[in-house]
Amino acid sequence: MAIRYPNGKRFNGNTRHTNQPSKNKYIKPVLHGGRGMTLEDELNESNEYYLSQGTAVIHKKPTPIQIVKVDYPRRSAAVIKEAYFRRASTTDYNGVYKGKYIDFDAKETKNKTSFPLANFHKHQVEHMRVCEKNGGICFAMIKFVSTDELFLLKASDLFYYWDNQFKGGRKSIKKDIIEKLGYKIDYSLNPLIPYLDAVDKLI
Amino acid sequence: MAIRYPNGKRFNGNTRHTNQPSKNKYIKPVLHGGRGMTLEDELNESNEYYLSQGTAVIHKKPTPIQIVKVDYPRRSAAVIKEAYFRRASTTDYNGVYKGKYIDFDAKETKNKTSFPLANFHKHQVEHMRVCEKNGGICFAMIKFVSTDELFLLKASDLFYYWDNQFKGGRKSIKKDIIEKLGYKIDYSLNPLIPYLDAVDKLI
Repeated sequence: MAIRYPNGKRFNGNTRHTNQPSKNKYIKPVLHGGRGMTLEDELNESNEYYLSQGTAVIHKKPTPIQIVKVDYPRRSAAVIKEAYFRRASTTDYNGVYKGKYIDFDAKETKNKTSFPLANFHKHQVEHMRVCEKNGGICFAMIKFVSTDELFLLKASDLFYYWDNQFKGGRKSIKKDIIEKLGYKIDYSLNPLIPYLDAVDKLI
Repeated sequence: MAIRYPNGKRFNGNTRHTNQPSKNKYIKPVLHGGRGMTLEDELNESNEYYLSQGTAVIHKKPTPIQIVKVDYPRRSAAVIKEAYFRRASTTDYNGVYKGKYIDFDAKETKNKTSFPLANFHKHQVEHMRVCEKNGGICFAMIKFVSTDELFLLKASDLFYYWDNQFKGGRKSIKKDIIEKLGYKIDYSLNPLIPYLDAVDKLI
């Protein structure tokens, strides 16, 4: 059974934020392109590179957690004993590049021919909409995992297809449309995902 | 005993992210200005107001948590059973206003005559430094809780006194200097903390 969390992502027991798998259930981490990294890991590494070069300051926001119970054992750090995943009210990534506010979300799909819009939550799209209105640069990073292809789709294009689904349109964006409207990002070495090259075309 | 967390703040069992106090120890929430709100609550409310007006999109980042153990009870949401507070690598607040990237941290002090620089962590100051270099607008929001006085101090002023402490200078900034260099923000109704008025003077 695939367990879905409020942010629409599966909890991955093997990310660097977690060092012990659950005793009850272990979910095998998803491997991509032979690298053993999720898109999130790849973006974090890319953002660290950009930061190290002074090119941009872009971070993933921490996953929001609702804390219910905390223990304070003697002589050691506080231990959270009961907490729940909360739904994020924004996108996952933001920061500053060339004086511009950058805001985006990254989504993977196993679908080979289209990107299902259900990968986005309404509040994430609305967040990008109001960020754009305030002069931010917003986009989606979409990865087709079966072919390891990555595209940057600017928010205005996403908004068009998002809104269109409520007017009887498709509930997904066909891959050939993403290939046409989006910017293909080829994996590189430093950074792994040179997505700011595509952002340069938006600003 | 005051328990300090990686972000330098006390865990407050009564914030809206937590609905049950710890069984082991209950820390009474700190009240300010008779409002029963922490500076964080006041800023969240102000940011919600700004968002509702379309003026700016500024959010507090979630507290970073290191998750160790998650249970998956049948038919209910995943329960985090063991987790720890992590130190944030950035400031707490960021977003976009008038096309500008905004980044700041908010600090309260009980000190009546000066603001101890130990309220900041080195990595927070370094984060603001690199954001400024990339064209972001960075500052500190400093509250003297004994008098309910609030000041916006621009990052470059903070950097000066921060660096100076390592050259034999004071480990705090005198309140009269903050009064002189900073922008005093008077509490208002909508928003509660109209800090973007002061930001207008920075941009």
